[in-house]
Parts: sequence; C-alpha cells; structure tokens
Amino acid sequence: MRALILDEGELRLDPDHPEPEVGPADALVHVRRASVCATDLEILRGYGSLPGYRGVLGHEFVGELDDGRRVVADINIGCGACRVCASEGGRHCPARTTLGIRDRPGVFAERVAIPRANLIEVPDGLDDELAVFAEPLAAALHVLDEPCEGPTTVLGDGKLGLLIALALHAEGRAVELIGRHPTKLEIAAGVGVATLLEAELGDDPRPRAAMVVDATGSPGGLRRAMQLAWPRATIVLKTTTKQPAPIDLSPIVVHELRVVGSRCGDLRRAIAVLASGRLDPRALITARYPLAQATRALEHAGEPGSLATLIVP
Amino acid sequence: MRALILDEGELRLDPDHPEPEVGPADALVHVRRASVCATDLEILRGYGSLPGYRGVLGHEFVGELDDGRRVVADINIGCGACRVCASEGGRHCPARTTLGIRDRPGVFAERVAIPRANLIEVPDGLDDELAVFAEPLAAALHVLDEPCEGPTTVLGDGKLGLLIALALHAEGRAVELIGRHPTKLEIAAGVGVATLLEAELGDDPRPRAAMVVDATGSPGGLRRAMQLAWPRATIVLKTTTKQPAPIDLSPIVVHELRVVGSRCGDLRRAIAVLASGRLDPRALITARYPLAQATRALEHAGEPGSLATLIVP
Repeated sequence: MRALILDEGELRLDPDHPEPEVGPADALVHVRRASVCATDLEILRGYGSLPGYRGVLGHEFVGELDDGRRVVADINIGCGACRVCASEGGRHCPARTTLGIRDRPGVFAERVAIPRANLIEVPDGLDDELAVFAEPLAAALHVLDEPCEGPTTVLGDGKLGLLIALALHAEGRAVELIGRHPTKLEIAAGVGVATLLEAELGDDPRPRAAMVVDATGSPGGLRRAMQLAWPRATIVLKTTTKQPAPIDLSPIVVHELRVVGSRCGDLRRAIAVLASGRLDPRALITARYPLAQATRALEHAGEPGSLATLIVP
Repeated sequence: MRALILDEGELRLDPDHPEPEVGPADALVHVRRASVCATDLEILRGYGSLPGYRGVLGHEFVGELDDGRRVVADINIGCGACRVCASEGGRHCPARTTLGIRDRPGVFAERVAIPRANLIEVPDGLDDELAVFAEPLAAALHVLDEPCEGPTTVLGDGKLGLLIALALHAEGRAVELIGRHPTKLEIAAGVGVATLLEAELGDDPRPRAAMVVDATGSPGGLRRAMQLAWPRATIVLKTTTKQPAPIDLSPIVVHELRVVGSRCGDLRRAIAVLASGRLDPRALITARYPLAQATRALEHAGEPGSLATLIVP
C-alpha cells in the first residue's frame, strides 16, 4: 500500500509499504481522510520530547472498517497493566505507543491497524471532513475540563487555537482569541468570538482573563499568558517547543497562577459536539492532497496562512 | 528608634529612624522577635519582581501592642476597593502594600505601624520563638490547600523547604524531603520525615510523587520537579529567581502536570498549628542578633548552613 514514512529523518512516500499487521485485538481501518498536525511537523524537525520516530506519520483521521462503519480513534495505547494506566488511563502510560508518534504506525497511509478498544464510531450523517477534526477538537475541548469563572483568552490563531476558541464559544464560555493573522481571526469572528490582533496588546498589557490558553506554539506564549492572567488565574499550556527559552517564571509564584498542561482529550465528546452542529470547523480546511502528494501536504501545512491540510488516500 | 533600612541599595542600621506613622486604622506594634527571609536577601540583591524597595526591611515577626497583647500579621495590605480584593483578598491586590517588601515599612525596627485588620493575636503560652515562624509557616501550610492523593516530595532543605516538610508531616501527608545538606535534612528526619540527598537521585530519576514542591530557590528546581512528578501530578512552585533560566517546559504539556504558584498563606492557621504542639520549628533557629547587629544577621542568613536567623530588638 502507499504510505508517507519518516525514515532516518527523511520524509518520503513509500508506494509499496507493507500492509499493517493486524493483531488479535486490532481492527483494520481504511483511512478516508487524514489531517496534518503541528506535532507531525515537530516530529519532522526532531521534536524534543519525541526523538527518532521512524515509520508511518499521522494521527488525525477518520476511517472505515471492512463492514462499512466509520471510526475515529484515541491515538494512545497504554500497556493496560501499570499504575498509571489504572489511575490516569493509557493516555499517560509511560510505556504507551501512539499512532504515528511513538512506536506505532500512523494514518498517512491507505490502511492502519488500531486496537478495537480505541475506536469510536462516527454517526451516520456526520461528514468525513467534520469527523477528521475529532482528535484535535478533543484536545481543544479538554480545556473545558479546567474550571473557570470569568473570561477566557486564547492566545494563538493556528488550527489548535482556533479550535479551542470555537469549542469554548460553542460551550458557552466567554472567550476572546488573540492572534497575529487577520484572515485566521476572521474565522473565529465569523461565529461571534471576540478577536484581537496581538500587536494591539502593546508591551505591557493589563491582566484581562480568569483563564488564558497558550496555543501559540511559541516560547513567548507563556510570557504573554502570564501578563494577561488575573491573580490566581489558570493558564492552560498547549504549547510544546523544542527550544527552551529563558522565561521569568516568578509571576507564577507572585500571582499564584495555575499553569496546567493539556494534551489529548476525549474523542467521544468531540464527536458528540460535531454531531450536535454547535461547531463547524470546516472553514479551517486550507487544502486537500491525495496521498500520492502527501509530502507536499506537509510542506503546505508548514507554510504561513495554512490551517488544516487534509490528505485523501 | 533603631531600624535596619535599605537606601539606594545600601543596607544600614539607622540609629535615629523616625517613629512609625500610626494611621487611624493602624496599631503600633513593638517588635519582640523578627526573622530574616530569603525574600529579604533577594530584595537586597535586586529581586526581579520587586525592584527598588527603599525603607525598613523585614516582614517575619511577632510583636506586642501597647496593651500587652502579642500579635503576628498578614503582611499584605490591599486597597480594599478593587475587583481582586473582592474576589481573592488583599493578598493579590495589584495596588497592595507589603510590610518591608512593597511601599510599607517593615519589621526590622523597634516599632512598626500595621493595620489592625491584619493583626492576629498570639495565644498566651505560645513562645515568641514559635510565633515568629507564623508567616513562613503560613506559606508552608498553604501547600496543603492543593489537593493531593499520594506521596509528596519536597525539594529544598532551606528554611521554607523544611517548614513545608514539617507542616505536611504534621498534617498527616506522606512526605519526603530531598536536599543537599545532611545537617539540614537531619532536622526533618528527627521528627520522622523521610529524607534523601539530592545527589542520590542521579541524572534521570523515575517519577515518584503525586505532588512535588519546589522550594529550592534555584531555577533547576522546576526541572527536577518535572522529573519526579507522576503524570498529571501537581508541582507547587515556591521558587522565585531573578535570573530566568532556559527550561524545557514540554513535560508540563506531555504529562499534563499542574504547576501551581504558591506564595503567602493564612497566619491564623499557622498560629493554630504552632499552638497545637504538632510542629516545633525552633530547631531551625541558627542564630540570634540584637537589632544593633541586624546587618550581620542578614549576612549570616545568606551563608550556607544558615536556616532561621532571628533579630531581637
């Protein structure tokens, strides 16, 4: 089958990749749509905490089983036997594998084998190009697991920042989105989210939110978040950056801020929100590429102005 | 009166300092014991978030009113009129003054004026040299406001780290203290706290705690804390450092850690714990100096091996 693979740091389309090994607990999934994530690009660049991945890239997708049912999947597979799996779920298992990220083939391929326990069925009538957002939208909705009384500011108008702003707005939270790209901010403004260009904040803005979400993907995001957070506010950190930058963390102590790391979320909840019609992220789709041009899809995803770049096997 | 003042970055004893101005809401407090805090030393060195303090230093103390009652005091005085004072208390008011730290004379003096609303009475029979720990012990007990199921590791065997370890132990939490000074660790071990020399951890220790408290006062403390924290654990950050160090914060996101800044606590609670006899921090007292030798007290407090250095007016 065709698959986009990373091999010794080189990205290439393998036209004759071996078929997935389908274990007794797995289902064979035919990929219908996949989407490029910033994490895919970070893996390409040699992402700090995920060094040396080799194999099929990709983890955002909607697929189809042999019996015609459509599915999305929780991308983390824990060992199922350790203390962490018992208390926090497989998502945090130190021995976990992760689709296209850690020790397990990803979804930029015609087919992929996935444990049946990780699959979530997609309801009839839910468009593939909505369902393909289930994984990043789950990560966005995870922000709602943090209690917050008061306004939320989301920093970063990339795909994740936009999804978070749309998700908080759809769920009734007072939210503003601050970014650097007028055309991206317009997508949020179009559904009624308050937006602001970051340049308008100035160098020393006043605190303005009970929760600030850093989805900038930049080390400066946390610094900005600390400026904008009220005393005892929550900062939800979505940004992982390879290059640690020197940041004065004393505002965390002085203002007793809560900096909460947030990674993956619940895909069932994401599917339910998409199926409800309360949130439609299709305006984020920048381009579609056939699997044969998947290397170009990743290049495009890394260009300014790009949001969601889809791969269609 | 005599007072230890900081003037243009110079520390000096002023033998003829003006008497405190006692406003209509204030009480005149005669200082009985004061203690040097790491924050005093940071202010001397030009602490990042508190630049340019001038006036009488010091904020840890026990004193006496004209009627003979003994008191300690919450050191922060909010404006009482803003949104933050209403929701979070004066401790976080952006316009607050703070004894010996921000725009208000401190306690390294014979007398000090303090708003009566900030005073907490010291019960008869509670030794001055226990009551003088009320302010730092309140900050230590504040760690207990974070819920935690599972073991807690405290990093740093300075005065604050020791007080936190003693406080958690006294309140029944499973706690270990990790530090670099065998003689300091012995104080905690003496009351039954598990202790470990930091060197024994090695470079890449396994996660070991549901909560890690960084009381190292060093930028490396947070890095260590992230190593030792279980997935989704809480890191309580007590360390403020002037020099920001580049730290890879991606473990916060990947392991969904909660980094919670923690500054001041409730002095009533600290007095209650001291009065209960469950905790006796007097073993931390390294030296006592008369107010006339207060500059030497601060020098001593900055030397290795020093814990609590008292000033006796």
